[in-house]
Amino acid sequence: MAVTWPTGARQFVHDARVARLATSAANNTPHVIPICFTVSGDRVYSVVDAKPKRDPVRLKRLRNIAENPSVAVVVDLYDDDWSRLEWVLMQGRALLVADKEEYDNALASLRARYRQYRTMDLELMSNPMIRIEIARVTSWAHGSAEN
Amino acid sequence: MAVTWPTGARQFVHDARVARLATSAANNTPHVIPICFTVSGDRVYSVVDAKPKRDPVRLKRLRNIAENPSVAVVVDLYDDDWSRLEWVLMQGRALLVADKEEYDNALASLRARYRQYRTMDLELMSNPMIRIEIARVTSWAHGSAEN
Repeated sequence: MAVTWPTGARQFVHDARVARLATSAANNTPHVIPICFTVSGDRVYSVVDAKPKRDPVRLKRLRNIAENPSVAVVVDLYDDDWSRLEWVLMQGRALLVADKEEYDNALASLRARYRQYRTMDLELMSNPMIRIEIARVTSWAHGSAEN
Repeated sequence: MAVTWPTGARQFVHDARVARLATSAANNTPHVIPICFTVSGDRVYSVVDAKPKRDPVRLKRLRNIAENPSVAVVVDLYDDDWSRLEWVLMQGRALLVADKEEYDNALASLRARYRQYRTMDLELMSNPMIRIEIARVTSWAHGSAEN
């Protein structure tokens, strides 16, 4: 199922350094945090680089995804000149990558985007990689209809 | 019920120009968009400045709040120098302000922060003001435990 990306949305997302990931617990309590990410096709990837001593599965974002895989990711530009405001919302389902090849490919893409990941020892068993399968992309820019 | 704000969190939120608001529909599908906002005590306010021809109640964020008042708001700083990364997450319940005095006070505070609102004709009946009653504040900065 191909996703329809609004004009310019892919480039806008690609150029961003940070996105915000919203998850929601089984009891329908939302949570939102900034994430570093990469996009491959209609998938967003984000790795958990928590300190090795912490059990990453305890992270709220991961507990929420386990309870409820529906997530939303927004990439936006804020500027005090509001004619520049723009956002792209991606909604879909999240899961943890289990396949080593997929993990390694996503990690390589993240390392290409963020130099900090290049020197971090990240691996499938200790640093979960979230994959978000995008189902719907919505965009907004100053002057377009509100969403 | 007083909310405990981590050290520095109030100032960090106050200084930010944009936040991201996560809501979740009754069917537990998250949604997240950037918002302009102001904070008064333990309340966050954000006004809907949609075009008058659109029915603002149809906005997804408002439909979600009507279905499920639980929301999350994050304010964060991204920098390619990750030692500067920081975020403050506020979770609570949202409703639309019905009281004119409260509406006017929130609008005055928004107008003090954002000059664009000063020349917009905003009023209670056509431009809903979202009030988020903060119940919990969580913060994170580089070097602190992950959340």
